[in-house]
Parts: sequence; structure tokens; C-alpha cells
Amino acid sequence: MKTIIILKIGGNVIDSPPVLDKVLRDFAAWQTPRILVHGGGKIASKLMGNMGVVPKMVEGRRITDRETLDIVTMVYAGLINKNMVATLQSHACNAIGLTGADANLIPAVKRPVKDIDYGFVGDLKPGGIETTMLTTLIQNGLVPVMAPITHDGAGSLLNTNADTIASNVAMALVETFRVQLVFCFEKRGVLHDTDDEQSVIDLMDMPLFLKYKEENIITAGMIPKLNNAFDALKNGVDEVRICSPENLTKGTIIKM
Amino acid sequence: MKTIIILKIGGNVIDSPPVLDKVLRDFAAWQTPRILVHGGGKIASKLMGNMGVVPKMVEGRRITDRETLDIVTMVYAGLINKNMVATLQSHACNAIGLTGADANLIPAVKRPVKDIDYGFVGDLKPGGIETTMLTTLIQNGLVPVMAPITHDGAGSLLNTNADTIASNVAMALVETFRVQLVFCFEKRGVLHDTDDEQSVIDLMDMPLFLKYKEENIITAGMIPKLNNAFDALKNGVDEVRICSPENLTKGTIIKM
Repeated sequence: MKTIIILKIGGNVIDSPPVLDKVLRDFAAWQTPRILVHGGGKIASKLMGNMGVVPKMVEGRRITDRETLDIVTMVYAGLINKNMVATLQSHACNAIGLTGADANLIPAVKRPVKDIDYGFVGDLKPGGIETTMLTTLIQNGLVPVMAPITHDGAGSLLNTNADTIASNVAMALVETFRVQLVFCFEKRGVLHDTDDEQSVIDLMDMPLFLKYKEENIITAGMIPKLNNAFDALKNGVDEVRICSPENLTKGTIIKM
Repeated sequence: MKTIIILKIGGNVIDSPPVLDKVLRDFAAWQTPRILVHGGGKIASKLMGNMGVVPKMVEGRRITDRETLDIVTMVYAGLINKNMVATLQSHACNAIGLTGADANLIPAVKRPVKDIDYGFVGDLKPGGIETTMLTTLIQNGLVPVMAPITHDGAGSLLNTNADTIASNVAMALVETFRVQLVFCFEKRGVLHDTDDEQSVIDLMDMPLFLKYKEENIITAGMIPKLNNAFDALKNGVDEVRICSPENLTKGTIIKM
């Protein structure tokens, strides 16, 4: 089985042009099949500010109203996605920029209204990813660059969490590839001591995770990330890595 | 040989939601392989206005500076393109939204500065279109929806004329398909009398074109469109049609 790497990058990478350029160079140089999943960054908020659009918040949660959906579509699927594609192409990486609407790759459902109406936010359908078409694109030498936008199949785009897209794409490909899922974020990995950037835990397995949770070594912000990672591993992903843009091949490796 | 239809739609379609919806419905219902090429419309200018960006003009020509390039990338490749894809998907048409940077489909060169520096405007390289990859996508059942953005291969996106993209894509596919190129614009076709919408010329060939030009029946605005059409026919395109959104299968047919 061939290895495929799914790299997820977030706002901390996207908002810094030199960091983004370095990450794209490193990603382009990889020789395995690969997928880049990107989040948003501050550009959308900046554009909203320029246009005098006030972000809608309900009970501290951000709401994607029609205006916000239009702006994130422009910024994520247009500006960020297509500039990344052009940069990767300049590094001889045959990138193709996609949302979940393109080729119906990621059908989603508008989040049901319970206490809060999140607006045009998409939750992924279990097993909904169009694995066959995604695999066809990859097997033709293309490198998908995925923006965090999906669609409801009824004509509406939906704003969707990029981490969720990355882990679901990873899980969808386990039948065809040996899948490595890499989350690139602001720290060098999972830290033993949150104040010490040098205290990266090299390898984390489930027993260690449970132990560190009990000892309060792993704290609030990291727990959902690690829960997601172990979910992906339970669903057949071979390896999850959490690392910083400085070194995409280091950081914390998470294994069952 | 299979027939492929390349439909180009411009601002008059994009700026009117009910007209756009009708055209996308008609396009989705076609059963042949097909490609949609779209222009811009007024949304980009409106967004520039909202953001206080003043369109740059030099000697009456519009200049694509960095700010304008970012806005057209957001609007054409993001907002317009991805909403069209979502709409086509809702009509069971497996659309995939692409720029010329994606899969390196349309490499271009930044227009050389002579009297005017047009900024980030791309001219197509002769024979530059990645026909093999484009054909692969189509043969996998995908329907490309192409935004009028290309790239220079060195990391920069470029603003590019949608008519030029449509006719070059048409010419690039003549080895593999019987190609029909359809330009949808504001009139019902080439008119015998520009004041009479009913005076559509059903069939135009080269001798008739030359005769009507001499008799001043065909005037300024239409001549470059028809020159482009005959260029496409000379390069192997089977049929060019000029029509209005009302009826994509009527209008003026142009044949050698």
C-alpha cells in the first residue's frame, strides 16, 4: 500500500507569508501522494472589517450568516486556496484547489438548529466523502488543496471546520492508502510542560494519553485534538502527527 | 468522436440570479460532456466600491493591480465559481470549479509592458493548455467550471479574458472531441438589424460574414466576436453559436 500524507494547516501558518511559503515549499518537495487541507486565518475577519460587516456572535459562538458565508467563500475558496495552488505549481507540485462542493467530494448537512442557529455551517455526513473520485484525482498525479467549505447538495455552500475535513478525508482513504495525518499548529508538538517549547513528547499512545490526562499534564486545549487523533487511529489511520511549521517531520507522533 | 460543448457566459448572465439559475439548469440538463466558462460581472466592481478600492484606469484601459487581482480572485474563483458549482451539483451535474492554475490547466504569461502596463493580466501561451489532464477530468464524468483566472507558473495568478479562455479550451480539445463552442451574450444572436431583436441571422459562414461586413450590416462590436469564432473554426472547432440566455440551442450558428 502506498502512503498518503494529509497535512492540515491553520491560521498561524496562513497569516504569516514567510511561514506559509516555507510550509508550501516543504509540502511541495514531498514525493508521496498528498493532500493539503487549510483553514482560514485572519484575512476573512480583516475583509469583513474593511467592508463594515460586523461578525455575528450568539452566546460567544460565531454565526455564519449569508454575508459571512459569501466572505469566507471568497477568502477561503478564492484568495487563499488559489494563491496556494499557484505557489505549489511554481514548486512543481501539481496542485488542484477544491472545496467539498467540487466533484461533490464532501457532501455535508447544515447544522441542525438546537439552542443556537449557527447559520450556514456544515457538518460532515458519516461515510459521505466521495472517496472514489478523490482517489482518481490523486492517482492521476494531482495534489488536492482543500478549502474548508462544503455543500448541502441543494445548492448552498457551507462553512466547515478544517480539522474535521482533514480527519474525515484521512479516514475515508484508509482502504486505498496507508494514511498519515499531520496537524501543523503553533506549538512544536504536544508539550510535557506547556511553558517549555523544548518539552515535546515524541511519542504518545493511548495508555500515555490516559496517564497524562489524569496527571493534568495534558490540558484543556489539547484534549479535543488528541481525542480526534485517536478517533482517526481507531478508524484505520496509520499515524497522526502534531507539529509546528518549523519542522513538519518532527513533533509528536500519535499511535494506538 | 463524442461531442463536447463549451458554454461561455458573461456578466449579463451572472448579474441576474434568475437568468443565471435558468442557464445553469439548462446546462446541467445537457447529456454530452461539457465545460462552463464564466466571466466576472459587476460583483467585483461592487466589492471594490464597498472596500473603497478605486479601479485603476490608464488611457481608458482597466489595470489589474495587486489589490484588483486579489478581489477578482476572491469573486471569480471563489464566490461566483463555487456558488455555480454548488448550484450545478444540486441539479445532478458533477461540476468541478477550476482556474487555469489548478492542475496547471492554463499556463499564461503576464502581458508584456509596451505602451500600457496592464498589471496582473495573463495572455495564453499558444498550445499551452494541459489538454491531457483536462480530458482526464472530463472522461471521469466531471464537468469543469472555469473561472477567468490563469497563472504564470512562477506563483502569481493572472486575470484573463473569459472569451479567450473559452475559445482556447475549445481549440485544445479538437483532437479528442467534436467541439461546439457557445457564446451566451445579451442579444439573441448576430442581428441583421441591431435595433430588431427578431432579425437573428440563423447561419453565418465566411462568405456571408465578408459580404455583411462590406455592407455594414455587421458592425464594430460584433466583428471581433466573429473573427474569434472563425479563428476557432479554422483551428478545428466544429461549430460556434452565439445566443442569448433565453435559448442556448438557438441563435446564430457560425460555420466555415
